[in-house]
Amino acid sequence: MTLIKQLQAQDEFMGFYLLKELEVKQTNSTPAKDYFDIVLCDASGQLSAKFWDVSPTDKETFFPMGLVKVQGLVQTYREKLQVKINRIRKVTPEDGVAVKDFIRSAPLSPDNLIQTIHRVMDSITNDTIKRLVAFCVEKVEEKLQHYPAAKTHHHAYFAGLAYHIVRMLEIGEFICKQRPFLNEDLIKAGIILHDIAKPEEMIAQLGIVSDYSVQGKLLGHISMAANWITEAAIHHGIELQSDLVLGLQHIILSHHNLPEWGSPVLPQIPEAVALHYIDSMDAKLQMVEDALELTPETEPWTPMIRGLENKAIYRLNL
Amino acid sequence: MTLIKQLQAQDEFMGFYLLKELEVKQTNSTPAKDYFDIVLCDASGQLSAKFWDVSPTDKETFFPMGLVKVQGLVQTYREKLQVKINRIRKVTPEDGVAVKDFIRSAPLSPDNLIQTIHRVMDSITNDTIKRLVAFCVEKVEEKLQHYPAAKTHHHAYFAGLAYHIVRMLEIGEFICKQRPFLNEDLIKAGIILHDIAKPEEMIAQLGIVSDYSVQGKLLGHISMAANWITEAAIHHGIELQSDLVLGLQHIILSHHNLPEWGSPVLPQIPEAVALHYIDSMDAKLQMVEDALELTPETEPWTPMIRGLENKAIYRLNL
Amino acid sequence: MTLIKQLQAQDEFMGFYLLKELEVKQTNSTPAKDYFDIVLCDASGQLSAKFWDVSPTDKETFFPMGLVKVQGLVQTYREKLQVKINRIRKVTPEDGVAVKDFIRSAPLSPDNLIQTIHRVMDSITNDTIKRLVAFCVEKVEEKLQHYPAAKTHHHAYFAGLAYHIVRMLEIGEFICKQRPFLNEDLIKAGIILHDIAKPEEMIAQLGIVSDYSVQGKLLGHISMAANWITEAAIHHGIELQSDLVLGLQHIILSHHNLPEWGSPVLPQIPEAVALHYIDSMDAKLQMVEDALELTPETEPWTPMIRGLENKAIYRLNL
Amino acid sequence: MTLIKQLQAQDEFMGFYLLKELEVKQTNSTPAKDYFDIVLCDASGQLSAKFWDVSPTDKETFFPMGLVKVQGLVQTYREKLQVKINRIRKVTPEDGVAVKDFIRSAPLSPDNLIQTIHRVMDSITNDTIKRLVAFCVEKVEEKLQHYPAAKTHHHAYFAGLAYHIVRMLEIGEFICKQRPFLNEDLIKAGIILHDIAKPEEMIAQLGIVSDYSVQGKLLGHISMAANWITEAAIHHGIELQSDLVLGLQHIILSHHNLPEWGSPVLPQIPEAVALHYIDSMDAKLQMVEDALELTPETEPWTPMIRGLENKAIYRLNL
Amino acid sequence: MTLIKQLQAQDEFMGFYLLKELEVKQTNSTPAKDYFDIVLCDASGQLSAKFWDVSPTDKETFFPMGLVKVQGLVQTYREKLQVKINRIRKVTPEDGVAVKDFIRSAPLSPDNLIQTIHRVMDSITNDTIKRLVAFCVEKVEEKLQHYPAAKTHHHAYFAGLAYHIVRMLEIGEFICKQRPFLNEDLIKAGIILHDIAKPEEMIAQLGIVSDYSVQGKLLGHISMAANWITEAAIHHGIELQSDLVLGLQHIILSHHNLPEWGSPVLPQIPEAVALHYIDSMDAKLQMVEDALELTPETEPWTPMIRGLENKAIYRLNL
Amino acid sequence: MTLIKQLQAQDEFMGFYLLKELEVKQTNSTPAKDYFDIVLCDASGQLSAKFWDVSPTDKETFFPMGLVKVQGLVQTYREKLQVKINRIRKVTPEDGVAVKDFIRSAPLSPDNLIQTIHRVMDSITNDTIKRLVAFCVEKVEEKLQHYPAAKTHHHAYFAGLAYHIVRMLEIGEFICKQRPFLNEDLIKAGIILHDIAKPEEMIAQLGIVSDYSVQGKLLGHISMAANWITEAAIHHGIELQSDLVLGLQHIILSHHNLPEWGSPVLPQIPEAVALHYIDSMDAKLQMVEDALELTPETEPWTPMIRGLENKAIYRLNL
Repeated sequence: MTLIKQLQAQDEFMGFYLLKELEVKQTNSTPAKDYFDIVLCDASGQLSAKFWDVSPTDKETFFPMGLVKVQGLVQTYREKLQVKINRIRKVTPEDGVAVKDFIRSAPLSPDNLIQTIHRVMDSITNDTIKRLVAFCVEKVEEKLQHYPAAKTHHHAYFAGLAYHIVRMLEIGEFICKQRPFLNEDLIKAGIILHDIAKPEEMIAQLGIVSDYSVQGKLLGHISMAANWITEAAIHHGIELQSDLVLGLQHIILSHHNLPEWGSPVLPQIPEAVALHYIDSMDAKLQMVEDALELTPETEPWTPMIRGLENKAIYRLNL
Repeated sequence: MTLIKQLQAQDEFMGFYLLKELEVKQTNSTPAKDYFDIVLCDASGQLSAKFWDVSPTDKETFFPMGLVKVQGLVQTYREKLQVKINRIRKVTPEDGVAVKDFIRSAPLSPDNLIQTIHRVMDSITNDTIKRLVAFCVEKVEEKLQHYPAAKTHHHAYFAGLAYHIVRMLEIGEFICKQRPFLNEDLIKAGIILHDIAKPEEMIAQLGIVSDYSVQGKLLGHISMAANWITEAAIHHGIELQSDLVLGLQHIILSHHNLPEWGSPVLPQIPEAVALHYIDSMDAKLQMVEDALELTPETEPWTPMIRGLENKAIYRLNL
Repeated sequence: MTLIKQLQAQDEFMGFYLLKELEVKQTNSTPAKDYFDIVLCDASGQLSAKFWDVSPTDKETFFPMGLVKVQGLVQTYREKLQVKINRIRKVTPEDGVAVKDFIRSAPLSPDNLIQTIHRVMDSITNDTIKRLVAFCVEKVEEKLQHYPAAKTHHHAYFAGLAYHIVRMLEIGEFICKQRPFLNEDLIKAGIILHDIAKPEEMIAQLGIVSDYSVQGKLLGHISMAANWITEAAIHHGIELQSDLVLGLQHIILSHHNLPEWGSPVLPQIPEAVALHYIDSMDAKLQMVEDALELTPETEPWTPMIRGLENKAIYRLNL
Repeated sequence: MTLIKQLQAQDEFMGFYLLKELEVKQTNSTPAKDYFDIVLCDASGQLSAKFWDVSPTDKETFFPMGLVKVQGLVQTYREKLQVKINRIRKVTPEDGVAVKDFIRSAPLSPDNLIQTIHRVMDSITNDTIKRLVAFCVEKVEEKLQHYPAAKTHHHAYFAGLAYHIVRMLEIGEFICKQRPFLNEDLIKAGIILHDIAKPEEMIAQLGIVSDYSVQGKLLGHISMAANWITEAAIHHGIELQSDLVLGLQHIILSHHNLPEWGSPVLPQIPEAVALHYIDSMDAKLQMVEDALELTPETEPWTPMIRGLENKAIYRLNL
Repeated sequence: MTLIKQLQAQDEFMGFYLLKELEVKQTNSTPAKDYFDIVLCDASGQLSAKFWDVSPTDKETFFPMGLVKVQGLVQTYREKLQVKINRIRKVTPEDGVAVKDFIRSAPLSPDNLIQTIHRVMDSITNDTIKRLVAFCVEKVEEKLQHYPAAKTHHHAYFAGLAYHIVRMLEIGEFICKQRPFLNEDLIKAGIILHDIAKPEEMIAQLGIVSDYSVQGKLLGHISMAANWITEAAIHHGIELQSDLVLGLQHIILSHHNLPEWGSPVLPQIPEAVALHYIDSMDAKLQMVEDALELTPETEPWTPMIRGLENKAIYRLNL
Repeated sequence: MTLIKQLQAQDEFMGFYLLKELEVKQTNSTPAKDYFDIVLCDASGQLSAKFWDVSPTDKETFFPMGLVKVQGLVQTYREKLQVKINRIRKVTPEDGVAVKDFIRSAPLSPDNLIQTIHRVMDSITNDTIKRLVAFCVEKVEEKLQHYPAAKTHHHAYFAGLAYHIVRMLEIGEFICKQRPFLNEDLIKAGIILHDIAKPEEMIAQLGIVSDYSVQGKLLGHISMAANWITEAAIHHGIELQSDLVLGLQHIILSHHNLPEWGSPVLPQIPEAVALHYIDSMDAKLQMVEDALELTPETEPWTPMIRGLENKAIYRLNL
């Protein structure tokens, strides 16, 4: 079976793919005929495809996010590859394929990631901090298993958010060793909590964000997470105006650093400054790493990366 | 007794004033001598003053925010008026003067303002909204009697915040009549709540802000008020994710309109759009009105007003 | 007859509509065939449509801004509704329909609006101001009956400009009562004059702006209106450098507030500050109200609104 | 007699100077004594000075912009030179000195400059343009003899505005030869008119701006000049909406190029684009030339120049 | 033979053109058919064209940048002209046409331009400067014959860069005469060197830039040229830290003036200030001149010009 | 002996200090008397001081950067501490104190830091990179022993630059382990070279920058370092256009990330992206750490930190 990343112009191929998007359109011939405008994907990438001569049954058979077996031909359209589908059918249990094999995922398993997050949470020495963190994590425990960290910006894949957290925890552990004046409990808590409301801010399935929730649009994940701390503190009977509660809320509120990047306050405690740079470093380097991975090795330049000021990344020949 | 606004160069005068600021300084003569660098004020304005030849007793007698009787001479220094104090003593009960007569205040009495706010609160038809608003107002009930609305920007005087709210309520009432598609309950609630956390964000006495609180710096009044809604909803058992709670939090979070003005989200419900413009209109016009009032009528231009892009206001001769 | 706003996918329908846009295009079949790419509208909204198999006669029969009777089918194209026209013919006098019934209009009649504007003009107590205002209004008297206030931004419909003025006059009346230090004559004059040159800045028909005039591009409506004041003052023999003339010109020049929004000077008299906020409040709230009205009530979100920083407006469920 | 530019620390000197600024201040000794805080200047530069022990007669004798004979000593204060005045008296007719010899002036005489401007005006071939230009020039004919081009930015000296115009005319003549598609009449007119309202925007004496006029603040010289064109056209019976009138107004309105630099419209005719760059080039290079001239040749760096983004200019050693 | 600029809707025509762009596309009929999506150009302009029914031989015959003879029909598509090609063949030697006649070129011949540049180089009096300039020019001597000055911004045609340099040298000569304090050698050198690395920054053929080089993207032409000066100085044994080397590097580095326009340092010597304005004036006026030339004289407005803040240029009717 | 950080109002004290700044000023008494306006410092901080009644001998005895023994009294002036010096004398050899004990220094010894840098340089596996790095380091080998990393921004103390490099190398080592796709040689080289030209950009003594060099102002350390790579490559006969040379120059040029922060190009290779964030993280956290260290532990807030958007840092009470 051919991976999408390997398909080239003029290839005839057959294989299993995920119908990531499917739209029924009409040709402008008279009478107009229906066709499918499709995006096929697997874990290696995605490709647009057309299926002409759609029957009424087809329209009731194929839907987005379903697995299909496709036999097709790779053509070129507007300098891009595009598949002309000759035959297509739904996957049956006998095919023995699973949706999760066809989507991009974090390099580590969700279980592994969640375990790491819990291990770090358990290592927080201040009990009050630990309980506040636990309360918030519990709210999204299930979604943390599969949510991406963003719609397109970075870590936009299955379990991307948990992966982002785990990688940041690694940086956090290092930086606390390098600069012992930082409070390690706050760094750990800040990393786990900074994007904790994202699973409620965005609506995602299989690591793909389709939209923002009403709450996400009206409040934003930063204010949502600050609210959760309030909720957690009330739940556990912790003084709302204690420096500890203020500190955690401050770290969350300020982690985008500048107002124009979405933070209502600038970082004003050491751990908030640290968190912002740990977050940036991990997000930006992941964008670079992912872009390189999705670009065929024969290409010297990746596509432009929006999160890097629309610059492409170059592979040096050393 | 002469009002500060009326004093002119070369005037000899005597009267009661408030010691708004007092600093002990040393002359650079040898040996250095102590003197007081003072700001005297009454409700009509303020003036800097010097009291040379300070005795050790004086240093233990006079402090900022105390009332004094002063006999002095008005001089000119760097093109500004300045008082040379000849005699100064503390006010005694027999003098029959009260601090509140010497500070700038809202044109309406605190009681009157608070009553109006309560009356409007009572007129909110949606009970849940009413209870959420009441919970937040109760938190600052006492401070609302005297807090200013800002450090220097606008309504920076005794009961300035309550006055700002009451005037906005008048605009709100008008605009709801003009545009019935607006939800009047939300407009009322938004106006009362939008700056409700300011008394906890700032540290003020007699209508004068001396600093921001730790909480004010780390969270800001916008996020603080959003938290209070969470607290209020939990207290009253209201669903945290109901549109009503989200809506109120959204109105508060978005009322500065743009991120660079401090709002983490832009207005996305009609009442949030309305609130931003009601707030701006009242704040800006009050700045203009106050600047004109504090400027002698013989001056065609007020001083520059920071909140109006550092422009001065001109009195047209029509 | 079905309103455009009510049409749904798969509907077959017949009715009268306005051909808001019409372009002859060619299919890419060989030989290429002509078809019409059309925008149909009525007062409730607009919809794109295709008419395939266009005959040479058709091309000489149908033109933009003509009324037609259409029989068609609603299809879906790229997730949007689109009409496939089966039959189309021009309207005849017998059909008894008029263009004005098919376009969006201010909720009040032009006559009503113009009368209100004249009534307010007459109420200006300062005769010089009254004459200056009258001179400028007279220049665009006829166009004020139907011009929109902007190309797309706000009040972009038949008599939108007059409606914007009238609603601002209501706010102006309120604010002058609330803050008597404002000069009511200047507020009235400023409101009537601030956009008075727009009918010469833009080229519009039936409330729809097709382009800006040469004068509009080279000078802009703000400088044009300032020029008109000069003209009016010369006409009436009023001193060009009187505070009254300067004041009116200043209000006009500064009403966009910031240079980057098009004002060469910042507001520096109280009425100029007031006018800017009266204008903003009315324009922004009208954008919100119009967007909600054009959005089917089943949709919780309006489309994005350019004048509100590209945000959509949400209907809360209270 | 020693030029101010030549004075050095510890010099004792005597000479005639202009009292550019004079303020009566009080020492903080008790009793306080009056002294003069003075700025002395001549055409080579300026220096601050103190005159201690001022008598009541002195206060009625010395005023800003008067000529004086001074005997003094050069001291250092805060790393800057400062004169301690030992003796000072007013100039008498017998001294045979004139104010104009003590101020900075354009390198060419006002007569010479005005003649050039008139000669160029006469060379305009289009009679209508010529008459419009003449009308505006006539308004400020007298002030053009001595007004500076700006408060501090550039050409801030006696006849600086006329000098700026004349030098721009030289560039204009060159550029019209180099690029014959430019309309030379418009270039000439644009150069003469672009800052023509500055003498009414600013209040100046002897080439020194003390303030902006009310008109200057409320309208700005750009809109004022646009108004003058309207006035001129009405005066000469020229069609206000002719391309010629629009074109001239457009050139004036757009010559600051960007809104944030004060232009309500961007350049949209070739001559407007040209004018902006002719103006910038002359202003910026004059700032550089003047800064170098006022800096002692032994100094490698000039002071920072506000109009050049606060950069200093370096003298290369080639 | 008809020039492209002269073609009008419905014209049938035959002539020689350059295939500026050619892409093979497929129709969405079933089975899909190949067609050519083409851009035809000659020196007067360019036009898109379609050639339906492409044969396999055609696909091996026609390539971008080849000359062809075309017989076709001018149609309208989306309000723009578009050619329907009926017959097309490659040019043969017998046709006697050359590619260079079909592309836009500077108005002066490359030889002429290069000679002027060399003549000015020879006139540099400081030998060290002359040698540094010569070293850099030699690097791109050949490419200077035909490279454009930019991808689309300005002087985007055959020998556009050399033409830009020559025209700037004319301005430079004038300004040095007008302001003798400028060092003419530095002005000449700065003009010749400021964009000297552009031929290595961009990849161009026949005056058309297809992409930026790796070096161009990673360093940019400004830093590249600064490096070349280092190289030249080492080559000629000139002290790298001499003011002369620093000065030349500074002029190059600062010639975009502001950091956001690409200059790492602001101009800090007189010649660097001058160079920036000489460069801007020439580039902007050339944009205007070229836009007018490419716009049919019947059109009052040119298309929008990106380098002029997206404004169009208007032809006044004087 | 009392550390400056420990001095409090009213303290009488005696001790050794460094005269960091000294200016001779005059009182405004008549006759004016000289006094010293002084900044005293030791490694714990600095304090301003006055020495009245300066004798002519004193003026020839005391100079900035000299060590002195002082007996004085701590007073309060404008809410800040200030020393009144009663007696002062120069340090003699017998006092046994050394300048270096009185200045702020990196926490590690210069030798230690330089050794680490050399060790990492030696560990670079690519010989060409190693030789390019060595060439540049050699240029500033001596100054690297003591130069600060900036004038005031961060690491502004003795050996601050070397310390910054060493700490970044620690982060670099970690991040290369965490993300093996990064080229460790480039990361090491980039860290060592990114600020390598700072010792030639700034003029510093004892870790205190007094000014920028001419070269520093005209080129900036970023372009200077890029030039050094060119020089190094020529010296070692390495191809100037090899990806390796381009890559190193690119990392240096882009390390400030955005043009407005001084980088002419944006990061476009993975190591350039990484370097920017390693640099930011180290600089910002050091600012925080230093500010906390210089602030008495009793103070909850540090002074405002310019490099952190003028925010102060708060010590949470957990």
